[in-house]
Amino acid sequence: MSTSDTRFMALALSLGRRGLGQTWPNPSVGCVIVKNGRIVGRATTAPGGRPHAEPQALAQAGAAAKGATAYVSLEPCAHHGATPPCAEALIAAGVARVVAPLADSDPRVAGQGFDRLRAAGVAVITGVLAEAAAADHAGFFLRTEQGRPKVTLKLAASFDGRIATATGESQWITGPVARRAVHAMRASHDAVMIGGGTARADDPSLTVREMGMERQPVRIVVSRRLDLPMMSRLARSARDIPLWVIHGPDVDPALHEAWQGIGAQLVACELRGGQLDLRSVLQALGDAGLTRVFCEGGGGLAASLLAADLVDELVGFTAGMVIGAEGLPAIGALGLARLIEAPRFELVESRPFGPDILHRWRRVSTGSHSNA
Amino acid sequence: MSTSDTRFMALALSLGRRGLGQTWPNPSVGCVIVKNGRIVGRATTAPGGRPHAEPQALAQAGAAAKGATAYVSLEPCAHHGATPPCAEALIAAGVARVVAPLADSDPRVAGQGFDRLRAAGVAVITGVLAEAAAADHAGFFLRTEQGRPKVTLKLAASFDGRIATATGESQWITGPVARRAVHAMRASHDAVMIGGGTARADDPSLTVREMGMERQPVRIVVSRRLDLPMMSRLARSARDIPLWVIHGPDVDPALHEAWQGIGAQLVACELRGGQLDLRSVLQALGDAGLTRVFCEGGGGLAASLLAADLVDELVGFTAGMVIGAEGLPAIGALGLARLIEAPRFELVESRPFGPDILHRWRRVSTGSHSNA
Repeated sequence: MSTSDTRFMALALSLGRRGLGQTWPNPSVGCVIVKNGRIVGRATTAPGGRPHAEPQALAQAGAAAKGATAYVSLEPCAHHGATPPCAEALIAAGVARVVAPLADSDPRVAGQGFDRLRAAGVAVITGVLAEAAAADHAGFFLRTEQGRPKVTLKLAASFDGRIATATGESQWITGPVARRAVHAMRASHDAVMIGGGTARADDPSLTVREMGMERQPVRIVVSRRLDLPMMSRLARSARDIPLWVIHGPDVDPALHEAWQGIGAQLVACELRGGQLDLRSVLQALGDAGLTRVFCEGGGGLAASLLAADLVDELVGFTAGMVIGAEGLPAIGALGLARLIEAPRFELVESRPFGPDILHRWRRVSTGSHSNA
Repeated sequence: MSTSDTRFMALALSLGRRGLGQTWPNPSVGCVIVKNGRIVGRATTAPGGRPHAEPQALAQAGAAAKGATAYVSLEPCAHHGATPPCAEALIAAGVARVVAPLADSDPRVAGQGFDRLRAAGVAVITGVLAEAAAADHAGFFLRTEQGRPKVTLKLAASFDGRIATATGESQWITGPVARRAVHAMRASHDAVMIGGGTARADDPSLTVREMGMERQPVRIVVSRRLDLPMMSRLARSARDIPLWVIHGPDVDPALHEAWQGIGAQLVACELRGGQLDLRSVLQALGDAGLTRVFCEGGGGLAASLLAADLVDELVGFTAGMVIGAEGLPAIGALGLARLIEAPRFELVESRPFGPDILHRWRRVSTGSHSNA
């Protein structure tokens, strides 16, 4: 692995990251084609997941691809789907060398892309920036390996962890810089998810504003009884921007019909102990193709996800404001008997963010995605 | 003001900061004496507040003080107290130039030190690093201007703002790096203060460990009814390390006598609405000479201080752990009717701190200490 391999792979990863939230159920991959130290092609998986990054970058490179190195942020695919496999395209273009961080965990690829390239005489180098790539593709890997999307839980709270006053007032705790960042975070996820209580209390639209988005994230409301207001912003916009409502098995058929009638997609899930079983909710979202879900609370849904050990990343925005103990807690009751049972996360980053602070944490991992 | 003036003043400030917590009721001042670009003397106000920094630095400089520049982190004193005034000592030593950030706010000094120096033909330059100096001396200034010490409220909490589980388990939420930092913070304050509930629940000793301290901070417990356990670590160590107990006017005389008997100093304060009036508590602490008080909770005392607008600085340590809404809130009920009434603070710094994050905030100022 050379310094320039690392540099071009970093570029491929950053191209790949641009497409996060836009390519589900496919991974967002970046590809850079380099000939004699010059970049002759670069691309990201297109919105919707096709075309993949490699054929776009090869098309840019044209004849220059012959003898070039292709930097790809994930193992090139090897299966015939809607398009011919990317491994074949790289071989056909005469690429001499492929550098990739990781093998794909999709069983239809899983090393076969690399095998096919090697069999055709292409040099294959793996392991370059593997950890960063594993983080970028975490949602895609979780879905192929465990059937569920990656869950990021975001909470914007006061210094003392409150998301609203006792009377429900929450606008604004954090400042405009944090709020803009939340829109960018929504844009990099396949879906934005909230609980029914937050939908009722805040009447949010959950759209991404001012980002020039090609594809809005799916909006998901988790509401066991489907007791959500039809006159809400979410309901009124359901024909234009996808709205999925997750509900329990015992909802009023008239309500069900009404929500279908306004254009929402309804997803029935099982209960567990009287509550929606969030593990099966996330399996349903994975089955529907979602790889990255951004949960914005409220406290009840946040607590249920944490209690079920389904939060992969925590994002906190903390404001320099104190609301006090009567305020609405960012995270509801967890029912811990001992401190040692508390869900734990390790720090990814923390920094000032306008007048607020941003802090990101990830699940304390018991293992890591294995490199190719 | 030259670059070297700023550089030597930064050194004087850092020398002054070393003595914070050790010099009350006096300010902790740093002094650097520079002759022909070389440092010939440097000192900090001695523990206990005397001798001041200037005579110590002058003694080091000896004859080299003649024609030198003295960098002093606060206006040299002009009043005859236990020792002759520092302004006179600087004049007598033949110092040619005095650089200071700010005038002292003590009415016995307040510009008279500078006047006396100028009258003796010494060049006086002020305003160098004035903002940093005002922050360092904030406690001393608050006491001379408002009669109360600066209050720093520190809270070490989970991601969701809890300081203990529902059953009171709090060891350990933050890691050893944060806990060590708390000891260093205690050491830089004149006193450490907690509420009676925390004294009962945690049985803390509130001492500074592993710091090679000359002087332990005073330990203060705010307990309206004086209903604290006599078998506690605080009570048992009251003869060795100062323990002040703030109580209401209506305590059991036998309890009062018992606490005095074990060596505690008792301070009676007024009630206001059935609670100890924290404004008069802080006035009493200011009367007793304290300039910097470090409050470590609990939630009730923290909320009362915030509600009374008596918190000058907030220090948060946030751990990557979630406790949930049944946990003990870091800050108790504030009784806010509207979000706009919430106490607000502006960010000073935030950064990773071992596995946790540290964030410091200060009161949103309505004005700032005026420069000389």
